[in-house]
Amino acid sequence: MINPYMEIAIQEARKAAEKGEVPVGAVIVKDRLIISRTHNLRETTGNATAHAEILAINEACRILGRWRLDDCDLYVTLEPCPMCAGAIINARIRRLYFGASDPKAGAVGSVVDLLRMRAFNHTPEIYEGIMESQCRELLTEFFRARR
Amino acid sequence: MINPYMEIAIQEARKAAEKGEVPVGAVIVKDRLIISRTHNLRETTGNATAHAEILAINEACRILGRWRLDDCDLYVTLEPCPMCAGAIINARIRRLYFGASDPKAGAVGSVVDLLRMRAFNHTPEIYEGIMESQCRELLTEFFRARR
Repeated sequence: MINPYMEIAIQEARKAAEKGEVPVGAVIVKDRLIISRTHNLRETTGNATAHAEILAINEACRILGRWRLDDCDLYVTLEPCPMCAGAIINARIRRLYFGASDPKAGAVGSVVDLLRMRAFNHTPEIYEGIMESQCRELLTEFFRARR
Repeated sequence: MINPYMEIAIQEARKAAEKGEVPVGAVIVKDRLIISRTHNLRETTGNATAHAEILAINEACRILGRWRLDDCDLYVTLEPCPMCAGAIINARIRRLYFGASDPKAGAVGSVVDLLRMRAFNHTPEIYEGIMESQCRELLTEFFRARR
């Protein structure tokens, strides 16, 4: 099954791989339309915060002119790390959809579960395993090629 | 006792307050010199990721031309939230110094303790309570004035 938003996120992840970046892509959706599509640019920019999700949130905030994205949904090919999960809380993202889980650094159930902690002032709806095999395959291929 | 780096972070926090921003300031230090000094700009920029620590890491990465800040120390007036604690992990910040703790959203011991979790691939040295009363007073005053 193809989720059209995750499909675009996967296209973004492929762009990252072509640049030698860990292939992760993200998309932000408002009223069924894509308002930002981004990919991981850590190596290209030399910036530790340039993960796909942070770039997508930055862009969506810029376009909408506000920090509160409570009418927006985020699609990302990989389970968010703590930084990106924290940004999802801070931006009040309504729904998170992700593809593959990240057993090493995932902060949405794998290593820690930040987005289901009621202590924080926002808990998005979470849908995981969206087009999981395609999302995972991209990563597997990338790391296999680099070995 | 005055810590000169935290003193500058406090000056940054004051600039935030003057702009109607929650007063949090941050400083990044390399070889005893300050390479970035920033303050919270969430409201001004309309960007959910524009916390003092993220802006400081962005700026330090830009100046040094690399994402790995393992020779840098971060001073911040308030205990980092999950997003900023995650950014500290991702940037491999060597030492974190913070002032006041944040019982509501702190991710360095208060709500969760991300920076002491061995599962992540980096754990900075942590020093807390640096010029704590001054850091806390800024926040108390800010929220008192807004009530």
